[in-house]
Amino acid sequence: MPDRLGAPLDVPVFERLALIGFGLIGSSLARVARQKNLARRIVAIDASDTVRARVTELGLADTVTGDLVAGVRDADAIILCVPVGVCGEVAEAMRAGLKPGAIVSDVGSVKGSIVTQVAPHLPEGVHFVPAHPVAGTEQSGPDAGFPTLFLNRWCIITPPEGQDPAAIAKIRAFWEGAGSMVEEMSPAHHDLVLAITSHLPHLIAYNIVGTAADLEAVTQSEVIKFSAGGFRDFTRIAASDPTMWRDVFLNNKDAVLEMLGRFTEDLSALQRAIRYGDGEALFNHFTRTRAIRRSIIEIGQDSAAPDFGRQPKTDKDQ
Amino acid sequence: MPDRLGAPLDVPVFERLALIGFGLIGSSLARVARQKNLARRIVAIDASDTVRARVTELGLADTVTGDLVAGVRDADAIILCVPVGVCGEVAEAMRAGLKPGAIVSDVGSVKGSIVTQVAPHLPEGVHFVPAHPVAGTEQSGPDAGFPTLFLNRWCIITPPEGQDPAAIAKIRAFWEGAGSMVEEMSPAHHDLVLAITSHLPHLIAYNIVGTAADLEAVTQSEVIKFSAGGFRDFTRIAASDPTMWRDVFLNNKDAVLEMLGRFTEDLSALQRAIRYGDGEALFNHFTRTRAIRRSIIEIGQDSAAPDFGRQPKTDKDQ
Repeated sequence: MPDRLGAPLDVPVFERLALIGFGLIGSSLARVARQKNLARRIVAIDASDTVRARVTELGLADTVTGDLVAGVRDADAIILCVPVGVCGEVAEAMRAGLKPGAIVSDVGSVKGSIVTQVAPHLPEGVHFVPAHPVAGTEQSGPDAGFPTLFLNRWCIITPPEGQDPAAIAKIRAFWEGAGSMVEEMSPAHHDLVLAITSHLPHLIAYNIVGTAADLEAVTQSEVIKFSAGGFRDFTRIAASDPTMWRDVFLNNKDAVLEMLGRFTEDLSALQRAIRYGDGEALFNHFTRTRAIRRSIIEIGQDSAAPDFGRQPKTDKDQ
Repeated sequence: MPDRLGAPLDVPVFERLALIGFGLIGSSLARVARQKNLARRIVAIDASDTVRARVTELGLADTVTGDLVAGVRDADAIILCVPVGVCGEVAEAMRAGLKPGAIVSDVGSVKGSIVTQVAPHLPEGVHFVPAHPVAGTEQSGPDAGFPTLFLNRWCIITPPEGQDPAAIAKIRAFWEGAGSMVEEMSPAHHDLVLAITSHLPHLIAYNIVGTAADLEAVTQSEVIKFSAGGFRDFTRIAASDPTMWRDVFLNNKDAVLEMLGRFTEDLSALQRAIRYGDGEALFNHFTRTRAIRRSIIEIGQDSAAPDFGRQPKTDKDQ
């Protein structure tokens, strides 16, 4: 698997790419699009004056604007990089600027709700290919982005049935150009897969950090001091953008509640094993979870370095 | 805060240090004791032929033996680095070899149960200073150890009331020599602090990985492929040693059940907010958990690198 972005494309995938929202994902897309020549011209659209000023300073786009209609005009591709909860209103607001044949896409962590929100606002002749890059860090804002964010990560696309194959191929080429591997599935299946691999882990991490903050017998400074025993990994996930995650849970309610129900049932079984001292049940459960970790490392979706390589393993044979 | 082990001590803390159990912790202790001159002679004791052969190959100790009584004979310090569940029987089995004035310690993740198990087997005149280094990785065995494992990490000691101050000072000096910061508290308070900062996070991680493995609608290969959205961090924790963790839960039952009860209550509140679409409750919860992350990074107990630095942030300004 290549660990670097390759050479720039000879011919860009898009002539004029409009990116809406310049947080971690939008600003990373602008960086890789520039570096890999994925688009001839990049238009940055953001509602915030502060963000626009910073995007200009960083030189991330050819044009920077706060005007949605003007920003998407003449673009052959428009990618929404805003929280899931506002995609509908952004689509409605930009509608008048969309040209026939343009491709609209997004990067939202939920897909069913995006389709419901966005599709009704798109005029005849505009293509719609929703996408979700399964990549990110716990940091936010235009400074947090970097061009290799999507490298060797999966991007899931969920084109509605009957969508133009040429438009799908363009979006696929764009993400492959950014270094991603692309997989196609239905919005409903996407939402189920992500509920277990991403949404539930975030919910649980947010929850345990909250539980720890509310204790009386253990002080917060003790929780912070002795966090290296496991807790700190949860705090990283629980430091993710609150707006983004609120929208994810509001927009993928059914799948998250389904996975949460299963999680709680399983946790009750472990709780019971602890209460009645059933060491065999605990040992068996703790053994079978190791195989999944091995597979994730084998396919290159995580590093095998112990403790994520936090502690450099020097003088090992000393 | 220094990021390297300092110079070796002029005078070792112990003359003859016996380490029992050569997994991640025991073998790391041997490495740092050698490198920092924390002990003049190191005796390695392990019940497994394979482990002993490997310890000899790696040259981690001056003497390697499977005989507990012979191994601890003449040692002025004996540290149990075996799973919590067998500390009692190991103490009983080594008893005949302990010399008057020797200090017995351990590295167990649970302290109340260690005191109950070990103390009754120690002869008059032998000191007992239980300790718990809050450090580790998900890897196990003598090859997994490295000398900087304890550097800048906390070590909690829980000496019984009335314990000899000189013996406590020696154990403190040993851990400080290994690069740790030492804090003293009661066994009961230790068990409560660790229940939230370490034991509950492990239980939850083991649980969600199990839940994911049992799904029918989402395949295991999908879970593995799309794990970068949060799930993979849990799999790292859930790859920890099953025997060690079974013993932790069996031996810290009350504190773990108490924390688990609080966690479940809080999770029900989040579940309810999702079900009824209460975005404000979700947003508020997700916001307050960020402050704890900031504090952990400020005091140096984790790296601020996004995503644990898994993705090198190169060409950032491109």
